[in-house]
Amino acid sequence: MLLTETVNKIGMLDDVAMAQAKERMDSLIKPPGSLGQLEQIALKLAGILGQPRPRIGKRAVIVMAGDHGVTDEGVSAAPRDVTWQMLPAFINGVAGIGVLARHAGASITVVDVGVAADVDIPGVLKRRVKAGTGNIAAGPAMTRDEAVAALEVGIEVARAEIERGATLLALGDMGIGNTTPSSAILAVLGGYSVNDVTGRGTMINDEVLDKKRRAITRALEINRPDPADGVDVLAKVGGLEIAGLAGVVLGCAANRVPVVVDGFITGAAALIAAAIKPESKNYMLASHLSGEPGHGLMLELLGLTPLLHMGMRLGEGTGAALAMHIIDAACRVLDEMVTFQEAGVMDMDEEKLLQEHR
Amino acid sequence: MLLTETVNKIGMLDDVAMAQAKERMDSLIKPPGSLGQLEQIALKLAGILGQPRPRIGKRAVIVMAGDHGVTDEGVSAAPRDVTWQMLPAFINGVAGIGVLARHAGASITVVDVGVAADVDIPGVLKRRVKAGTGNIAAGPAMTRDEAVAALEVGIEVARAEIERGATLLALGDMGIGNTTPSSAILAVLGGYSVNDVTGRGTMINDEVLDKKRRAITRALEINRPDPADGVDVLAKVGGLEIAGLAGVVLGCAANRVPVVVDGFITGAAALIAAAIKPESKNYMLASHLSGEPGHGLMLELLGLTPLLHMGMRLGEGTGAALAMHIIDAACRVLDEMVTFQEAGVMDMDEEKLLQEHR
Repeated sequence: MLLTETVNKIGMLDDVAMAQAKERMDSLIKPPGSLGQLEQIALKLAGILGQPRPRIGKRAVIVMAGDHGVTDEGVSAAPRDVTWQMLPAFINGVAGIGVLARHAGASITVVDVGVAADVDIPGVLKRRVKAGTGNIAAGPAMTRDEAVAALEVGIEVARAEIERGATLLALGDMGIGNTTPSSAILAVLGGYSVNDVTGRGTMINDEVLDKKRRAITRALEINRPDPADGVDVLAKVGGLEIAGLAGVVLGCAANRVPVVVDGFITGAAALIAAAIKPESKNYMLASHLSGEPGHGLMLELLGLTPLLHMGMRLGEGTGAALAMHIIDAACRVLDEMVTFQEAGVMDMDEEKLLQEHR
Repeated sequence: MLLTETVNKIGMLDDVAMAQAKERMDSLIKPPGSLGQLEQIALKLAGILGQPRPRIGKRAVIVMAGDHGVTDEGVSAAPRDVTWQMLPAFINGVAGIGVLARHAGASITVVDVGVAADVDIPGVLKRRVKAGTGNIAAGPAMTRDEAVAALEVGIEVARAEIERGATLLALGDMGIGNTTPSSAILAVLGGYSVNDVTGRGTMINDEVLDKKRRAITRALEINRPDPADGVDVLAKVGGLEIAGLAGVVLGCAANRVPVVVDGFITGAAALIAAAIKPESKNYMLASHLSGEPGHGLMLELLGLTPLLHMGMRLGEGTGAALAMHIIDAACRVLDEMVTFQEAGVMDMDEEKLLQEHR
């Protein structure tokens, strides 16, 4: 089975490459550690790609789209059809992710893994497992087989991008109502109360927030997802695009390609991937801290540090796309800065310069 | 006098362009406000450049270098000569700022405004006002005339870059010991205690930190800088590169060009510029929150929100250069995303989509 094979392929970071990268990083003409997270990213990429001086080449954003039966509970301010109606603008490069993917020099692949409407959108990869999830406040989102199928769509899409040469992937989402299953996933996998992990999505009012909390509470009571079984959590209270994105993470990890997490929904997908295979965390990079209150808790569970604090909460992969430039910069610093030794020209006490240069 | 002329030219943001930009921003196919700081940056640039859909063209990093007499007090771990010894690597593109300026697509101009050593470095613009400041723990850093001269160097350098076509400038610094005058400036202009604003610069130990605090305390006692007079603060407890950078800020503001603040030292320069002319804050953009503890207080005084939280503390303009891509992205989002009306293809309730799209 593709899922099992993929999960079994996921291994540890390359310690040797990382140690070599660290040695070089600490000998560059700057005080050790003074480039902060830029240094940490470069070392992680060395470990992922197995190269002491990693470089990023082709990059791709993968946006997964799906609908959510739980919108029947009135948890969202927007109508369900907006899910598919936004997709042409993704493809045509005129939505947020269209512009920011182009700015990042990244291609964009949009996958319909679970749109509810009976539509075919030119340019969108149609890999629909199911026409929207069931209402999690009344039953499971999908069957276990459907969850596995959606995970495998993500694995296949990631593999195809990697075969086309992508060396850095970013996750994006589109799905009206999808902060609701994401909060449910965080509550289960992080052991948090529903109130702690439920935010206003895109500016819902107090009344809708209350409905959302009650829907999540009911979803957890009725479905009793097993926190020790990532696929069970996904099937019972997840989403199809969340499953697809978790599959992309697993596909990246199995193929040793770094993957950039975006906001709250892709964070939930990353949590599912980590629940299925904890080592997949090694292959994730955080991008931004979203305006959604539970996002920081998610990143903490994943052991990731967000780079951008910009109050973004659009989703679509916009924060992840924006961070690609920084990840690229991290690699360039490691590769293109010189060491004290390489600089040569400098007639000085290298030890002291290493210690402090201001 | 150039300084007075420049200061008198600094005016308000273009309200009309900002209002037009805001109207467009709120009608783009995303929930209003969902791109967070990216939206705020675009609106500010509209106001600075006086364009409802601003775009960033040529960009330049200006690094000012100077030495500090206060290093005689043993406030820094590195020897003073490191100031000039790093400059060839800036020019040759192999230091941190060299790599990150190139990655940002920015030119780099390095200015010797106050290096102490008797050196001429090929490629470095020699505009030395004085061979290093006096020891602020024993007397003033420089005379008022010298402070004005160094400010005017910055104004001229900024003007030259703008005449060459730069539409976005970033500030960078190099000067062993320069966190000490920067802390002194912050203490005076923010009304903070010395302990609250004095950090470890580049990892000095407890003993050196103690010397640094005592040197700053003495500098404030002996010099009694007047917080109501920015030039007085600069002359008494500042630095030559800090003066040059403050001049760059004033030059940008007078010419309506946005300027990106880097870390703690460029933040001190921005505080001086704001003390000289409060409206200059309108033309500043923050980049990152540095590891230096006082930096957040500085940005608060300036009314700026840092975008990157990466624990960087190298200086040189590295954080500012890294943020240029994001500032560019902000403009592209405003210009290249379509409005609901422009999208046309979408057959839906625009009001609802505006409200929420997930």
